[in-house]
Amino acid sequence: MKKYAVIVAGGSGTRMGGLVPKQFLQLKGRPVVWHTLETFLRAFEDLKIILVVPANFEQEGDALIRQTTAPWRIQMVAGGATRFHSVQNGLQKIEEESVVFVHDGVRCLVTEKLIRRCYNQALEKGSAIPAVAVSDSIRMMEGDSTRAIDRSRLLAVQTPQTFRSEIILPAFEQPYSETFTDEATVAEAAGYEVFMIEGEKENIKITLPADLVIAEQLFTTRNHKL
Amino acid sequence: MKKYAVIVAGGSGTRMGGLVPKQFLQLKGRPVVWHTLETFLRAFEDLKIILVVPANFEQEGDALIRQTTAPWRIQMVAGGATRFHSVQNGLQKIEEESVVFVHDGVRCLVTEKLIRRCYNQALEKGSAIPAVAVSDSIRMMEGDSTRAIDRSRLLAVQTPQTFRSEIILPAFEQPYSETFTDEATVAEAAGYEVFMIEGEKENIKITLPADLVIAEQLFTTRNHKL
Repeated sequence: MKKYAVIVAGGSGTRMGGLVPKQFLQLKGRPVVWHTLETFLRAFEDLKIILVVPANFEQEGDALIRQTTAPWRIQMVAGGATRFHSVQNGLQKIEEESVVFVHDGVRCLVTEKLIRRCYNQALEKGSAIPAVAVSDSIRMMEGDSTRAIDRSRLLAVQTPQTFRSEIILPAFEQPYSETFTDEATVAEAAGYEVFMIEGEKENIKITLPADLVIAEQLFTTRNHKL
Repeated sequence: MKKYAVIVAGGSGTRMGGLVPKQFLQLKGRPVVWHTLETFLRAFEDLKIILVVPANFEQEGDALIRQTTAPWRIQMVAGGATRFHSVQNGLQKIEEESVVFVHDGVRCLVTEKLIRRCYNQALEKGSAIPAVAVSDSIRMMEGDSTRAIDRSRLLAVQTPQTFRSEIILPAFEQPYSETFTDEATVAEAAGYEVFMIEGEKENIKITLPADLVIAEQLFTTRNHKL
């Protein structure tokens, strides 16, 4: 089966407090999203990447793609006003039957193993939504008060959210809704059941300066294991 | 009003993968929980601490207390089988009307400011449960399937969970239940309403090796601001 990864590096990343969007910040001498691209390139030799970058960052995107080991497998598209619109722009490049990964560019600690597990499940069941147990105590607001939720029943959702093209492509033809917080909710709104898969605790989003420090540390630990 | 902080350093900390429980790991040359103790000591001059340590770590606990700037304000008790039992052991040392903080020893990034805000609210309303917005997409398991939860309605609970003694002391006389995941759920089970307060994003638990790295980084950043 053909394989496409829509990698969303579309945020303006203001939370990092700098002028450089977080996906272009340096980690081990390379932009965060470079690590993400390389892991997807390694996961499957025949996988193609559609990299979604913010509208005014085409030059940075180009430079980034040229730094990878397989620039000819990556095309770039401009992001939209929301994550939904960014993913929609990316998906418009896919015209053949395939398994499609939608991944946060800033989740650069994703592993080839997780990518392959998602592929296998999506091929079989139609989708694979990685998620992990929630470690905080969680409460839900109800009017002016709150109530504890049994955290053993909660899952924190990650990416790559992975689908067969015949599910994700029609799902993204729906009009936008504010309830679309990820691709799973888009697929569900279109009437498809989604299937979860065990994610990876270390598959975190790099959204705060502290996360860059963790990511650097985890990369170092992994390399020591090789 | 008198002030007591029950600081729970009771976990065996196996997730760190070492032989030293995580609360005794070194951060900036001191055990993690030392930083926690010092912040509480600084927050109020008349605050007394009850440090709960695992049953076989009395020696480490003693050494730790001697390293602080005010050992005479800290007493030590042995932890129990669960967090509930550990906190219960600590609370048994409190016999006077007071405001009581219950805090995770491994949340060493807590600030004096948060401690004081919790005190003020608990004095006024009876309790102060710090919590922050949830940044992950969350799903709830329902039988074999899952459904998305509106994360704007969710809160991740932190510590110090702060109460007036006339609430927390009787609440901990209840028999143990598995639904007691924190002090707020214990107080609610005893029929008290609990009141939330805005927590701090950086007030994280040090439970993974990566967290130590973040904590070190955040401490360094804070000191640069001084």
